Amino acid sequence: MVSNAKGKALVVLSGGQDSTTCLYWALDNFGRDAVSTLTFDYGQRHRIELECAQRIAADAGVPNDILPIDTFEALGGNALTEASIDVADAEDGALPNTFVPGRNLIFLTFAAAYAWPRGIRHIVTGVAQTDYSGYPDCREDTLAALEKALRLGMESDVELHTPLMHLSKKQTVELAVELGALDAMALTHTCYEGLRPPCGRCPACKLRARGFAEAGVEDPLLAVA
Amino acid sequence: MVSNAKGKALVVLSGGQDSTTCLYWALDNFGRDAVSTLTFDYGQRHRIELECAQRIAADAGVPNDILPIDTFEALGGNALTEASIDVADAEDGALPNTFVPGRNLIFLTFAAAYAWPRGIRHIVTGVAQTDYSGYPDCREDTLAALEKALRLGMESDVELHTPLMHLSKKQTVELAVELGALDAMALTHTCYEGLRPPCGRCPACKLRARGFAEAGVEDPLLAVA
Repeated sequence: MVSNAKGKALVVLSGGQDSTTCLYWALDNFGRDAVSTLTFDYGQRHRIELECAQRIAADAGVPNDILPIDTFEALGGNALTEASIDVADAEDGALPNTFVPGRNLIFLTFAAAYAWPRGIRHIVTGVAQTDYSGYPDCREDTLAALEKALRLGMESDVELHTPLMHLSKKQTVELAVELGALDAMALTHTCYEGLRPPCGRCPACKLRARGFAEAGVEDPLLAVA
Repeated sequence: MVSNAKGKALVVLSGGQDSTTCLYWALDNFGRDAVSTLTFDYGQRHRIELECAQRIAADAGVPNDILPIDTFEALGGNALTEASIDVADAEDGALPNTFVPGRNLIFLTFAAAYAWPRGIRHIVTGVAQTDYSGYPDCREDTLAALEKALRLGMESDVELHTPLMHLSKKQTVELAVELGALDAMALTHTCYEGLRPPCGRCPACKLRARGFAEAGVEDPLLAVA
């Protein structure tokens, strides 16, 4: 039974802080019975992300499917899928070396392809164009163009939801608190080094720590460790 | 050495009649030295398509790369990747059961991701919105929206070229003749049943035969058989 008239929602769940916050946003907006989650197994450096996603979905009481994508590894050349490349901060104005061209376009297109035969209209993703990634495929104008391409290309009324688009990391932490997602943050994974407890030194760890610090909230992941 | 000022071009080469015609269009427009080809190994029913693509590229004297995509098979539920589903003509107004939601969006996004680090600006694809497929992701408005998403999402000036977009099958055959691509048609694969000589009865064979008949040209693939 779908619990409201808005229809079904699919959350693209990476196992990280942002997508987990989005899951709780979706629970709040669409109701638990209407929400499912999709995780991509795309050759990410750390398989722990997949386990985190499964655990987060189970903890929230919603289904999780994992869809393989072997293409990014075959494309190669970036620090997100190649363990031999060190993650580095971006030079001024340059794209970071974790940039995988089109990664979010691919994720969202496959999410829409997964949603299509299942009658799921709403797709929720944790991308944001504010103070984090520097990835151009996380920006609002990119997502708007993609939504149009998906609607036309699948003859559907699919909607892409990006609740974090204009939030700072601080505001994302505050939203997680507001949505009752703080406990679930202990289950998430952020560290580029794949460490648990997190390394605290990689760009992803530093960004996460700053967000929690600015919000004045203790990161429950650190309490676990 | 790139032979002209237009830059490099990548042809999405399936091994079929349309993409082969596009390859010759690209040779004509960009020059042989500027052209390369990309083929997707996405679990299509018939591996013979991959061999055809390799042979067509070699025959034309241009490189070919094959990129795997395991995701469509995992998504399942369509006649293009599941041998257990028979290919059927579409009911009036319905999408054909060979429709894979978002397939061309994925192909072109991966093509752009492949092109990006290689400095290839032009991507050529044999999609058409005229009298064949009924696939909404082959239409001009879809491709325009996708091009915009790719440009924004990759911070690039990638251009999608669709030389067959408004051609009938008859006109596509005439274009192949004009471009000197007719001999290469003997190397292509069209039949949904994977047969060589082609079955002549599946929707793809019938469409191809009609195009050649209307153009008054003998299909060299039939002479091979």
